Amino acid sequence: MTNLQTMGRAAKAAARQLAILTTAQKNAALLAIAGELAAQAALVLAENAQDVAAGRAQGLSDALLDRLLLTEERLAGLVADVRRVAELPDPVGEEMDGRVLPNGLRLCKRRIPIGVLGVIYEARPNVTIDIATLCLKTGNAVILRGGRETLRSNLALVRVIQAALAQMGLPPAAVQYIDDPDRALVAELLRLDAYVDMIVPRGGNALHRLCREQSSIPVITGGIGICHVYVDESADLARAVAIVENAKVQRPSVCNALDTLLVHPAVAASFLPRVAAQLAQHGVELRATGRALAILQQSEHGAKVVPAGVDDFDQEWLALILGVRVVDGLDEAIAHIQAHSTEHSDSILTNNWAYASRFVNEINSAAVFVNASTRFNDGGQFGLGAEVAVSTQKLHARGPMGLAELTTYKWVCLGEGQVRV
Amino acid sequence: MTNLQTMGRAAKAAARQLAILTTAQKNAALLAIAGELAAQAALVLAENAQDVAAGRAQGLSDALLDRLLLTEERLAGLVADVRRVAELPDPVGEEMDGRVLPNGLRLCKRRIPIGVLGVIYEARPNVTIDIATLCLKTGNAVILRGGRETLRSNLALVRVIQAALAQMGLPPAAVQYIDDPDRALVAELLRLDAYVDMIVPRGGNALHRLCREQSSIPVITGGIGICHVYVDESADLARAVAIVENAKVQRPSVCNALDTLLVHPAVAASFLPRVAAQLAQHGVELRATGRALAILQQSEHGAKVVPAGVDDFDQEWLALILGVRVVDGLDEAIAHIQAHSTEHSDSILTNNWAYASRFVNEINSAAVFVNASTRFNDGGQFGLGAEVAVSTQKLHARGPMGLAELTTYKWVCLGEGQVRV
Repeated sequence: MTNLQTMGRAAKAAARQLAILTTAQKNAALLAIAGELAAQAALVLAENAQDVAAGRAQGLSDALLDRLLLTEERLAGLVADVRRVAELPDPVGEEMDGRVLPNGLRLCKRRIPIGVLGVIYEARPNVTIDIATLCLKTGNAVILRGGRETLRSNLALVRVIQAALAQMGLPPAAVQYIDDPDRALVAELLRLDAYVDMIVPRGGNALHRLCREQSSIPVITGGIGICHVYVDESADLARAVAIVENAKVQRPSVCNALDTLLVHPAVAASFLPRVAAQLAQHGVELRATGRALAILQQSEHGAKVVPAGVDDFDQEWLALILGVRVVDGLDEAIAHIQAHSTEHSDSILTNNWAYASRFVNEINSAAVFVNASTRFNDGGQFGLGAEVAVSTQKLHARGPMGLAELTTYKWVCLGEGQVRV
Repeated sequence: MTNLQTMGRAAKAAARQLAILTTAQKNAALLAIAGELAAQAALVLAENAQDVAAGRAQGLSDALLDRLLLTEERLAGLVADVRRVAELPDPVGEEMDGRVLPNGLRLCKRRIPIGVLGVIYEARPNVTIDIATLCLKTGNAVILRGGRETLRSNLALVRVIQAALAQMGLPPAAVQYIDDPDRALVAELLRLDAYVDMIVPRGGNALHRLCREQSSIPVITGGIGICHVYVDESADLARAVAIVENAKVQRPSVCNALDTLLVHPAVAASFLPRVAAQLAQHGVELRATGRALAILQQSEHGAKVVPAGVDDFDQEWLALILGVRVVDGLDEAIAHIQAHSTEHSDSILTNNWAYASRFVNEINSAAVFVNASTRFNDGGQFGLGAEVAVSTQKLHARGPMGLAELTTYKWVCLGEGQVRV
């Protein structure tokens, strides 16, 4: 029987060991995991095949089956990913804001692991390897809870990781998995504040709300983006077409993809048919309102146009659908974004310096863009080396979280007998 | 009737106005508050006198009455504090980690206000001014909830602040107060995640637990410290006496005061009577166990010595009491601290380089000291200019939180038409 108290205690003990490992020791463990994963590929694939067969028998969609499928090629990709994590710089141990105080005390902040993470995620086995290795790199222990459709695959992967950790003399409890599919265990994990320092949900709105409402542990929420592009009167319209196309269609299923297009009235009649024609080539459906609807219905472009429903500007589409609205100008664009944005990624396309400045000042989304695609809000694109999550909350981290965001700090204060006066 | 939804909406609207104020505008508002506070002193003192009279009638202790009392001198001190906040550097607008990406995008993080804070605090009217002005300085709106014993004083102070804000053309909803003492409103505030971005409880353990368990908003917990000093065999014992005395008695009622003294067996017989004699001068009671108890009972020093109870090493004393234990050496000292510390402030006194390094590496409290008093874990002492709280949690901020810790950041990404490839 799964005992979360026991798992939590073991995780905390493991975290204390991980916290004092050198970067070289952690990298050696990561390479051991990569080696073990390659060596145990047949076993992992066999377990995964059972998950896929069970999923097919349950009638999972082809898209879902594809997400949970591991192939030799995908597994080789995972092995390469683990080796890449070993090559990333280790943020732990970095010292910041060092100074000597007037009384001679030497003070700095030192970056340290957070401790124990609880990660709740959807049905993708690659996340198991991804999260486990990023946690190990930063000296954190982790308790994983994946989707039930990938239970066998995840357990096989965790066994591989634990075997590699044991080979290297490290505590296998550094990476643990809740193998009982009972949902009550999620609620219990969210209350394990005696041992767990941070909860990371990777899933939809319902999971995020569950975590926010039930967790007594700090939760990192994010990964849900209702993203906007506002095309100002002064925008370069050819570039605007390219940016809207990129933001909408380059990968429509992700959180930084475009959801709503806002257009200045002075360019709506010329811009909307052009962008619609471009989006039509990708099969994008336009949900438009008021003036935008009228222009799109009266012009030739080949795109499907539907009147926007009452909630259509509060949708994260994750699909080839785009809300379209003409706004009176920057004020209304900002007001629309402030009312509907999830504060993920919003962009203004303009050549007007003052408008760009106002947009950047007044829109407080995790990433604010001028003349660029919202798709850039990404750890890889921003040069962070790795991406743990994209946060839309205000505390700890916002936007793409890299390895440094899996750490915290302590103050280190070195003296020769100082007392406070 | 208090309507928290209305207050939340107004706070969020006010926060958007505050977020785009210049530092000069915010400082002018702070000086207006200082001026209004000085001008309305008689009115504030009259309301406070009613709180004090009511508290006396209810039989509050002299210590509690003194905490809620405002005098002309204390009010003048508050006015001076507000002017000092105006003089502090404004962290908002700072740009960090700026770079040009390979595709020409210009990227940086810009520091911005968090938005709306909810602060729940104990019966001290100075906290009302303190929190309101630190929030205003950092462009945050705040919803305050103070102790019921100071309701009249707090309402008078908030009226003063709101009058000054209105004079300066700023939204009075930037600083709001929940004037209904119904405790259900605290629970409601903790669920106001549509409008409130961060909860700061300033009170005891029970309030912190309530917030952690009931809040759907991120909570900053801290301010509760079970603090340790470990006196190693190699410590300079004269300095150790001074440090233990300072950490225990300089201000025993605060979170960074010493709670437990751990001593190496090789120096216990010589050190314990010396430190006991020094502490006896301040009336400190020693709660000792095992070898420490035996040594203290068999030596002359004048301090009261009591056998430590089973929970005495899990107490934040906030009083002239000190737990004392002899540990076998560094390993046992670290194990004791890891088992009992609230990860606030812990110190090793040693001349052994390797032991100091191990202590600093293995103890992950918010502040870790070598040869210094735990009393230094403080925003003023660490040179932060102001102190909002002392955090002992892992996310967002640890240890003393200054103005920068009342901010978050957004990524600003400026381009000329870039799309993601």
